[in-house]
Amino acid sequence: MAFDSIETPRGSVDHCLGGAATHFALAASYFTDVRVIAVVGKDFTAEHEAVLTRRGIDTTGIERADGLSFHWTGSYTGSLNEAKTLGTELNVFETFSPKIPAAYADSEYLFLANIDPVLQARVRSQMPDVRMVCGDTMNYWIADHRENLDKVLRELDVLLINDGEARMLSGEHNLLKAADRIMATGPRSLVIKHGEYGATAFFSERSFPGLGRLHPFRAPALPIAEVVDPTGAGDSFAGGFYGYIASQPELTPAVFRKALFYGGVMGSFAVERFGTERLQGVSEREIEDRFRLFQEISHLGFADE
Amino acid sequence: MAFDSIETPRGSVDHCLGGAATHFALAASYFTDVRVIAVVGKDFTAEHEAVLTRRGIDTTGIERADGLSFHWTGSYTGSLNEAKTLGTELNVFETFSPKIPAAYADSEYLFLANIDPVLQARVRSQMPDVRMVCGDTMNYWIADHRENLDKVLRELDVLLINDGEARMLSGEHNLLKAADRIMATGPRSLVIKHGEYGATAFFSERSFPGLGRLHPFRAPALPIAEVVDPTGAGDSFAGGFYGYIASQPELTPAVFRKALFYGGVMGSFAVERFGTERLQGVSEREIEDRFRLFQEISHLGFADE
Repeated sequence: MAFDSIETPRGSVDHCLGGAATHFALAASYFTDVRVIAVVGKDFTAEHEAVLTRRGIDTTGIERADGLSFHWTGSYTGSLNEAKTLGTELNVFETFSPKIPAAYADSEYLFLANIDPVLQARVRSQMPDVRMVCGDTMNYWIADHRENLDKVLRELDVLLINDGEARMLSGEHNLLKAADRIMATGPRSLVIKHGEYGATAFFSERSFPGLGRLHPFRAPALPIAEVVDPTGAGDSFAGGFYGYIASQPELTPAVFRKALFYGGVMGSFAVERFGTERLQGVSEREIEDRFRLFQEISHLGFADE
Repeated sequence: MAFDSIETPRGSVDHCLGGAATHFALAASYFTDVRVIAVVGKDFTAEHEAVLTRRGIDTTGIERADGLSFHWTGSYTGSLNEAKTLGTELNVFETFSPKIPAAYADSEYLFLANIDPVLQARVRSQMPDVRMVCGDTMNYWIADHRENLDKVLRELDVLLINDGEARMLSGEHNLLKAADRIMATGPRSLVIKHGEYGATAFFSERSFPGLGRLHPFRAPALPIAEVVDPTGAGDSFAGGFYGYIASQPELTPAVFRKALFYGGVMGSFAVERFGTERLQGVSEREIEDRFRLFQEISHLGFADE
């Protein structure tokens, strides 16, 4: 969990509540019960916590440490595709060692947000009985902490990364080859996010026995005219995706594919306002309407008379 | 029509038959009768012509001029997304003035391939009775021949361009805003190609009365492990797209959307071999199987038990 200071062509915000855990938890909260493990500083107030608890999110696992919360400063220009990081203050994050509350022990679905793979592995090993583990990472860990990251990847059911990360991780530019290589050494399934072009999931024999060779599935992204703030779009995608999976009795190919659409839906809401503002108050109706819109813009025959 | 000398990571070819008209005509020939207007030189032999006539393409409109055919030399590295042009010999193309055979007068569908917009406009004005006009262009004409290009755009039913061209033409980075701006000044419908990420069609009130505001539709591209030669993929997409439309009694939103899938299908075949090799001999069964594959990789519930 973090505070973000963000500038985009549509304006700026100072120290708004952010961080992968926040965006993920809010997005997932529309589908399932969510429990958070994170560290914050003294600048994290009751009002900040209420953003999560109002959505029913269990905050028992949020550790309050001496000092200030992680703070990221970044700006987006032109394409809004990539943030320029202007400052990263680790603060209480620097010495973070995730502790899992006893009350979380019966959790069935674990999401390992982008963080030092040593910590991801530690959390994973403390939750041996989860049904499914989904994880994220980023270029920094891929480039300089590869051995630690590889240990995490080997135990993942689903890895969620973007195009650049997939290419870096595999050393392959072609995404199908990149997927093949990544899945051969780790995750049972892989989701590669393409930003404004949507996402592709790759399934193999290890994802769903009987499938045989590598199978792709492509989910669209909604073309959006006014992106206010892209920060957290990927984490919101992950939250919608994994929250929907956790809400279903069984992980089938059909559930996985629908989950990708719900991921896109939550990502498309996230960018409509700064920080978590939009994801604090989406209605179930809005989610279903947008899910339908995702089908309309991608399915033959769906919108026909 | 042209000869292409191409180098890709998978090999190289020297003077293979190419050009927008060739790729488009071959792809479209699987759906409808095709008539070509083009210029070639003395290096265009009976064997080259047979590549077209074997597919039932009417070559009456191919003018044989003194000199050599247009010759393009290019190479692709790494990503295969963009060609590096190593040489462009205009040859007989330099003084080309398209002449429309009398036998073409009853054509119903006109495709204006990428060429000087002055020539596109001239062809258009000589075929006043066509039901529909679809056109392509490129950065060169957008940057330096804007006034001429604008006249062509005003009369287009469908403009088919790629991301970079849409941004350049509109001065807008955001694709939805770019589409809005482009359609406000010209084409009734717009197809923006995203390379390996597929394509988006934009429909407005002027595309299909009653639609109201701008409507997008996104078609996937097939992830392909071994792209042998991307040359002509966009023209093959255009051929599949427009050929399918021409084969249907009426242009409805459903037909337009299916046409985008057929465009993707033909583009996906085109890159499997150098030049036009693959598109010279695709079977109807292969086309329908791949169309089904495009649905499987993008439609919820399509491949489910």
